[in-house]
Amino acid sequence: MKQPFINRLNTQDHDFLPSLQTLLAFDASEDKAIEEAVTHILEAVKQRGDEAVLEFTQKFDRSQATCMQDLEVTPAQMKRALDSLDKTQREDLEQAADRIRRYHEKQKLTSWQYTEEDGTVLGQKVTPLDKVGLYVPGGKAAYPSSVMMNAIPAKVAGVGEIIMVSPTPNDQQNDLVLACAAISGVDRVIRIGGAQAIAALAYGTECIPQVDKITGPGNAYVASAKKRVFGTVGIDMVAGPSEILIICDGSTSADWIAMDLFSQAEHDELAQAILLSPDEAFLDAVQASMQRQIANMPREAILRTSLSNRGILIKVKDLDEACDVANRIAPEHLEISTTNASALAEKIHHAGALFLGAYSSESFGDYCAGPNHTLPTARTARFSSPLGVYDFQKRSSIIQISEQGAKTLGPLTARLAYGEGLQAHAHSAEYRFKKV
Amino acid sequence: MKQPFINRLNTQDHDFLPSLQTLLAFDASEDKAIEEAVTHILEAVKQRGDEAVLEFTQKFDRSQATCMQDLEVTPAQMKRALDSLDKTQREDLEQAADRIRRYHEKQKLTSWQYTEEDGTVLGQKVTPLDKVGLYVPGGKAAYPSSVMMNAIPAKVAGVGEIIMVSPTPNDQQNDLVLACAAISGVDRVIRIGGAQAIAALAYGTECIPQVDKITGPGNAYVASAKKRVFGTVGIDMVAGPSEILIICDGSTSADWIAMDLFSQAEHDELAQAILLSPDEAFLDAVQASMQRQIANMPREAILRTSLSNRGILIKVKDLDEACDVANRIAPEHLEISTTNASALAEKIHHAGALFLGAYSSESFGDYCAGPNHTLPTARTARFSSPLGVYDFQKRSSIIQISEQGAKTLGPLTARLAYGEGLQAHAHSAEYRFKKV
Repeated sequence: MKQPFINRLNTQDHDFLPSLQTLLAFDASEDKAIEEAVTHILEAVKQRGDEAVLEFTQKFDRSQATCMQDLEVTPAQMKRALDSLDKTQREDLEQAADRIRRYHEKQKLTSWQYTEEDGTVLGQKVTPLDKVGLYVPGGKAAYPSSVMMNAIPAKVAGVGEIIMVSPTPNDQQNDLVLACAAISGVDRVIRIGGAQAIAALAYGTECIPQVDKITGPGNAYVASAKKRVFGTVGIDMVAGPSEILIICDGSTSADWIAMDLFSQAEHDELAQAILLSPDEAFLDAVQASMQRQIANMPREAILRTSLSNRGILIKVKDLDEACDVANRIAPEHLEISTTNASALAEKIHHAGALFLGAYSSESFGDYCAGPNHTLPTARTARFSSPLGVYDFQKRSSIIQISEQGAKTLGPLTARLAYGEGLQAHAHSAEYRFKKV
Repeated sequence: MKQPFINRLNTQDHDFLPSLQTLLAFDASEDKAIEEAVTHILEAVKQRGDEAVLEFTQKFDRSQATCMQDLEVTPAQMKRALDSLDKTQREDLEQAADRIRRYHEKQKLTSWQYTEEDGTVLGQKVTPLDKVGLYVPGGKAAYPSSVMMNAIPAKVAGVGEIIMVSPTPNDQQNDLVLACAAISGVDRVIRIGGAQAIAALAYGTECIPQVDKITGPGNAYVASAKKRVFGTVGIDMVAGPSEILIICDGSTSADWIAMDLFSQAEHDELAQAILLSPDEAFLDAVQASMQRQIANMPREAILRTSLSNRGILIKVKDLDEACDVANRIAPEHLEISTTNASALAEKIHHAGALFLGAYSSESFGDYCAGPNHTLPTARTARFSSPLGVYDFQKRSSIIQISEQGAKTLGPLTARLAYGEGLQAHAHSAEYRFKKV
């Protein structure tokens, strides 16, 4: 069967839901070979520390380094990378960083407490994480914007030390990535990658301290290693393929919407671009525009594959039904390109980021609008949130019972504890209000 | 070698850190047999839904149920359970629920947004989770307080539907647990447990809808199943053994502190109780008190095992050093039983909950002080927080670029996107400010 340019569905079709399900599905199964390799690497680094990290880096990244010091980027190298930027490039990155910082500052959690009538104080203390590891992929997947989107929230949270790891195959450094690290306030940069870098951050080595949390995207080895060290350290989400869902009433230019769909589909072959409209003629116009514009796109081959395998134009009954479908999909990015975008947004329960109105193309959010571009994928927006300052802070409960408070809470606690058969709990409460 | 009643360490000993490390360690390795059983159960429920859930419940819980309806607790049964409480018991539970609710209401996150000079609106929208599954263990591990500590935050968050699952071996219901479910606002109670209950909530069956997140404690099968379904649904933390660390300057009664250590150690053989004091004579007094009081404790056998294997009295140089050791351990519960507790609390970076002053015994926090008793264990307080309302809410970024805003953000986005080789991203931004 000939593959379509892009898939077409109609919510009125009897097989709409199963067809949608089939197009949404992707193979998330684990690769045995990767799992075994990662197990081996994690264990080696846990046992032998820097020695193992160096060996793996020499082997996998074809590095000439003979000691860990060779793999540490010096402050002079950081400065050189920053100086290597041309004036516009540097101003652009600083402007983006400023906007990201300003937005994220609004996310900062603060401690709070309250005092009850009897003098008992209750509250929650918020503290930043001490040390954070930031993974930045090397080679073709190195996106400078990812450095900023991970490091800036950590910095705003007040993290004590941000240690960035990033592989440099053949010892080739990416100056743009280094410059972004400098602009974002990264404290140390170490030229290591893969599962060995995750292991070094999770367990600590002679040169690298154990961190409290590791964030940032990576390949299948990195993702597998992050999952395995979770619990020893915190991790951010393990991301699935990127997705966009656009709801359009037909009032936005078909060319604009076509290009917005492309901007998602160009990421990789598994990326998913979906458009919902009640206007069949508009869906036709967008498809025609895509077919016309695709020949001019440098990433045409990727576009054709992802649109054909996973792209969908869906005819809906009306915009309310579009919101229902969007809630079912819980997309990473949701553009509401309609005249009443804010009103429709009220009906959306699940989405990583909402882009409202014709001017809010998703690409603004990837670089410089301000909000984070690390967003929940694969329906996880049902229960998780964009990466943020709150991911680099944690809370501790504060409980300060007054002598008076113990007189009322003590008997209550003792009765409840006896009810659960925990006598020491009960006695411990009783000591606080009984003469012994 | 004879096992000690409780272990004694001194920070001045040359082998202090490795000795501490050894006593802190516990075996968290996976059990192959459990992993395989869980894989089989998850797959069966995913494929066969209610039919498989019913079969496993008949088999593992020796249930007489012949259909899923038999396993659903009716509103009449809920009411009967509530009516079965005596007056004091009911008032106690309601008072505890009220205090928990009042504290958790302070945690509620709210949406925010701001408008830039050019009319661009940025913000974050906060919404509750739609559906949450609450696991409550059956039999001896059924703690009514856990029902409240999980259900009330979800309710405060505004979760649409709270579905509680709890096994009832031999169809024996625990009325106290049911009554707590009613008091806490649980919507449905289903008498199923183990990996089959987790699978039903994670994948959905004919009778049970797929939920967005599953919280609550459980045995090794439940923990393994939760880890495996993570990603399909959200989960709370997978808890390790419970721990208390007490810092005392010697100003609190040795008997009180001895009982506080017991209240942790009585949970189970792996529970860990640690006391730090600069006053060696006080450590001796606490040990003597424990040895005197232990014979009167109904859970003496558990106490002896956990204190001997994992309990520690540590002589520190001073209270500042005590804080350093506490930060290294990052305990679940931290009692600061000193005259200057609030000042010392400022030095604590990592702890699930801080109990300040002599009257703040940890047991108040387990039942009715207000804060949650589900806390990060096993050093995860370095990067995670008590269970709270925020665990039942999620955020979506809001990005509404104005026509004017697109004129400044458009060129910036386009340049940054070209820099990363993503042309569709660049074009999509350009369309918003260029005449095409």
